[in-house]
Amino acid sequence: MIQLLCFLDTVVRTQFRLAAMNQHNDYTTLRLAHENGVARVTIDNAPVNVLDVALMTDLLRVLTALRDDHSVRVIAFESANPDFFIAHVDMSLVDQPDAFDLLAADIPDGVNVFQGLGEVLRRQPQVTIVKLAGLARGGGAEFVTAADMAFGAVGRAGLGQVEALMGIVPGGGGTQYLADRVGRNRALEVVLGAGLFDAATAERYGWLNRALPAEHLDAFVDGLARDIAALPDGVVEAAKHAIAPADLSEGYQREHDAWRGQFVRPATGGRAADPRRAGARCSDPRRRARPRGPVAQSAQVTETSVGWAWRSSALLDCVVSTWFLMVTDVEIPSTESVDEPGKRRRRHLPAASAPSSAPRGNTP
Amino acid sequence: MIQLLCFLDTVVRTQFRLAAMNQHNDYTTLRLAHENGVARVTIDNAPVNVLDVALMTDLLRVLTALRDDHSVRVIAFESANPDFFIAHVDMSLVDQPDAFDLLAADIPDGVNVFQGLGEVLRRQPQVTIVKLAGLARGGGAEFVTAADMAFGAVGRAGLGQVEALMGIVPGGGGTQYLADRVGRNRALEVVLGAGLFDAATAERYGWLNRALPAEHLDAFVDGLARDIAALPDGVVEAAKHAIAPADLSEGYQREHDAWRGQFVRPATGGRAADPRRAGARCSDPRRRARPRGPVAQSAQVTETSVGWAWRSSALLDCVVSTWFLMVTDVEIPSTESVDEPGKRRRRHLPAASAPSSAPRGNTP
Amino acid sequence: MIQLLCFLDTVVRTQFRLAAMNQHNDYTTLRLAHENGVARVTIDNAPVNVLDVALMTDLLRVLTALRDDHSVRVIAFESANPDFFIAHVDMSLVDQPDAFDLLAADIPDGVNVFQGLGEVLRRQPQVTIVKLAGLARGGGAEFVTAADMAFGAVGRAGLGQVEALMGIVPGGGGTQYLADRVGRNRALEVVLGAGLFDAATAERYGWLNRALPAEHLDAFVDGLARDIAALPDGVVEAAKHAIAPADLSEGYQREHDAWRGQFVRPATGGRAADPRRAGARCSDPRRRARPRGPVAQSAQVTETSVGWAWRSSALLDCVVSTWFLMVTDVEIPSTESVDEPGKRRRRHLPAASAPSSAPRGNTP
Repeated sequence: MIQLLCFLDTVVRTQFRLAAMNQHNDYTTLRLAHENGVARVTIDNAPVNVLDVALMTDLLRVLTALRDDHSVRVIAFESANPDFFIAHVDMSLVDQPDAFDLLAADIPDGVNVFQGLGEVLRRQPQVTIVKLAGLARGGGAEFVTAADMAFGAVGRAGLGQVEALMGIVPGGGGTQYLADRVGRNRALEVVLGAGLFDAATAERYGWLNRALPAEHLDAFVDGLARDIAALPDGVVEAAKHAIAPADLSEGYQREHDAWRGQFVRPATGGRAADPRRAGARCSDPRRRARPRGPVAQSAQVTETSVGWAWRSSALLDCVVSTWFLMVTDVEIPSTESVDEPGKRRRRHLPAASAPSSAPRGNTP
Repeated sequence: MIQLLCFLDTVVRTQFRLAAMNQHNDYTTLRLAHENGVARVTIDNAPVNVLDVALMTDLLRVLTALRDDHSVRVIAFESANPDFFIAHVDMSLVDQPDAFDLLAADIPDGVNVFQGLGEVLRRQPQVTIVKLAGLARGGGAEFVTAADMAFGAVGRAGLGQVEALMGIVPGGGGTQYLADRVGRNRALEVVLGAGLFDAATAERYGWLNRALPAEHLDAFVDGLARDIAALPDGVVEAAKHAIAPADLSEGYQREHDAWRGQFVRPATGGRAADPRRAGARCSDPRRRARPRGPVAQSAQVTETSVGWAWRSSALLDCVVSTWFLMVTDVEIPSTESVDEPGKRRRRHLPAASAPSSAPRGNTP
Repeated sequence: MIQLLCFLDTVVRTQFRLAAMNQHNDYTTLRLAHENGVARVTIDNAPVNVLDVALMTDLLRVLTALRDDHSVRVIAFESANPDFFIAHVDMSLVDQPDAFDLLAADIPDGVNVFQGLGEVLRRQPQVTIVKLAGLARGGGAEFVTAADMAFGAVGRAGLGQVEALMGIVPGGGGTQYLADRVGRNRALEVVLGAGLFDAATAERYGWLNRALPAEHLDAFVDGLARDIAALPDGVVEAAKHAIAPADLSEGYQREHDAWRGQFVRPATGGRAADPRRAGARCSDPRRRARPRGPVAQSAQVTETSVGWAWRSSALLDCVVSTWFLMVTDVEIPSTESVDEPGKRRRRHLPAASAPSSAPRGNTP
């Protein structure tokens, strides 16, 4: 806990430095609006809200700026892109090394910068609510899970911890948030299955507070945020004090060790040393986690090419993965008809398990 | 834990004093029946089973009296009122200060009298089961959650922690029971959303063991109670020993601090000092938590006027809230068509999130 | 933890001794197959996969043998019998005292041999997945719950902790696994209600990861196992390190005390001293836990006679229960029309609680 509190101080100090660097306080990857005690944060980091240095910086800045704003009781997060809340992490350090340097400065042992973002969110004095209309994967899914509440749109929202496909485990708190929220058995399935969970399944697993019909998501979340903001003075603080977040220090350390361990495995000569090998694996389009069934059909997801590479960062004293996503207008087919011998086959995660529901396709 | 055990002793001693005061041992707000190892406690505190001093006293008395009755293995709680299990707390100290004085005597630091009732219930050697046919709100919902098991009737049962609407958080253990049972994210939604949860949603959240068709609730719970009571000697004790309640001492303290803090906030000059202000807020009928959709339609809830006031109690060494409920024959409309500008609008909590279910109205 | 680690060492040593005893390493109650990193363990202990000494020995042996096999990343358990995964525990010590002697050797205080099997499974370095096509009861259900993940077939799979009907509580970790996974309220219902839970209900309670249409279970679990086994090096280890099993030492001790206490109750003169009395109770066919509704109809369970007896075992330094199951071709009727006065009546556990589902019969 001491480390985490130190980290929060560090974040505040870092934000001052970032603010000093900038000539103005505008956010480049999100929009902020206030109304009646609700701060609405609309993530807008085109094309698919990759969680890059710019977005991480802006999220930390807006959380820090709002922390002491007593006129704000609720922070509601949504996306300008109806298909993606946060597509995934993209640590393109090459482009903005200085900004990342500032973010990573003085981070205590055992809490990496990704865990730090989640912890800042968990410790926010306001109530934080995610309106999940589209997809959140990798670090994006961790952000959703770190928020106080999250509501998803049936048929459109999707959550996935897809890190395993790239040879790592979630390293931004996700393993700990999931184990706490959905139980160890389902957390292992989420992390190792690396599939995309639609809103209904995520609700059943307890990952989301609730899955709502897509056409009602806005009204429900907006109404909830407004109602909470209209409560008498002190109720939000009292509730967040009484229902405090668990101390995850030990779990963060274990997760970080597991996560970093994947970058520097002596047995393999270090995965970072051969990015092409891992990259080649991921270049198979069937290896990518993506929506299936109703999600795919409704969201018309349009990824066509995913590549990634490992990059070393002395700033983090560890290596972080980066991968890049190109968006085109090619629709992903909702079924896969080809399975090459010896290749990994992707199973279809059923959308629901009610006996009365239509059969869900599995590996053909 | 030491404090809690001391409290249990205190309760026993208090009960002796109460018994000495009374000329007979009859309960005024509940009925007790024994049969084949099952004690059936029927709450009957007309008109709507408000959890007042009389009912709290009777519940503590009956739990204490049964504690050492080895012929009883299961205690099943139900209500004489099909629409209300326990409507909410009503600490009408004005009417029975002496009785409340006895209840509150010698309560250790950090455990208030409401938490004490929940803790007595959690530590009861018998299996405690709630048959929830109607509504339980505020302290009534806390009682339900503190029991070992609870089953609710689809379309009729409802649970709500509505304290936030009155400027406080649940103070009788509810925040801790909920965080443990439904997870932090949903506990925050329950407490801060202050909505009423129907049985199906409460089951999905894990708040109830199970939601059952209303016509089967009696047979299911009665059968379960009978079966457990018919188990071989020692099984109930063994199961309750192996699956022990968690020690909530720290959480009780945190909750109590948060709860009491709402009564003595210097920033507002103390809410207790201006009961009319708070009362005026609650006089808006749209502000009250109450059943919606199927619950409202089936239960034909007939509240029309809710008022409340804050009262100071030196007996508790803190201030407790009191509010009063009048029941008339006017039915609450199931929808709200008017939203005055600037007024808080109530969202409709969807009854279920299954994709196939009918659309659930939200704020129009 | 020290005790548990010592126990693991003991298991390894015991296995060497068992291996030395045997002229070959074949398993008598299961089949083992390897393919692409997945070890498939097919339990085949006819007629109904009773968890007897032979099966316990084979399970410990195969887990021990696979522990250091780095070519295996996933262990998938399934049954050769479509109706039973593991019917229940059957410690027929009479037949194989030596084997059981070896199993029980050097078990530390507070961890009995049944808990030991669960703990070995929980600490397995590979990912363990149960494909539950039929029934698992008693120690069989504990095995399922101890695995990392479990998926069940709608309409066919069933889980039940039926020990209470025989006068004991689950003693192989089940109370602790359940409390952790489904919460205290539902764990008490499972243990004391002693009913059989179908896959859909078990999923809703969080007991199973997921209930799947029976015709998709194979493809889903096989696909998941294959996908996990195909992950890059180190991911499985990292995930299992980050999402570590909780230390249950204290809970194991509490469970063991509760469990063993049922065998040596001075108040009853010791149940072990009068096996016929307890056996007579269980000879009532209505007392037996068995599938109902869709499970019974689809699985065509064919038990007709259950007897059991208590046996004392100095090897375990405690008494263990044994009971025997005969399988005939007589189908269990799906409803019970007779209730003799004074006899325990069995309630029907509803298969699902969705309001739209057909009414579920209770005891008529």
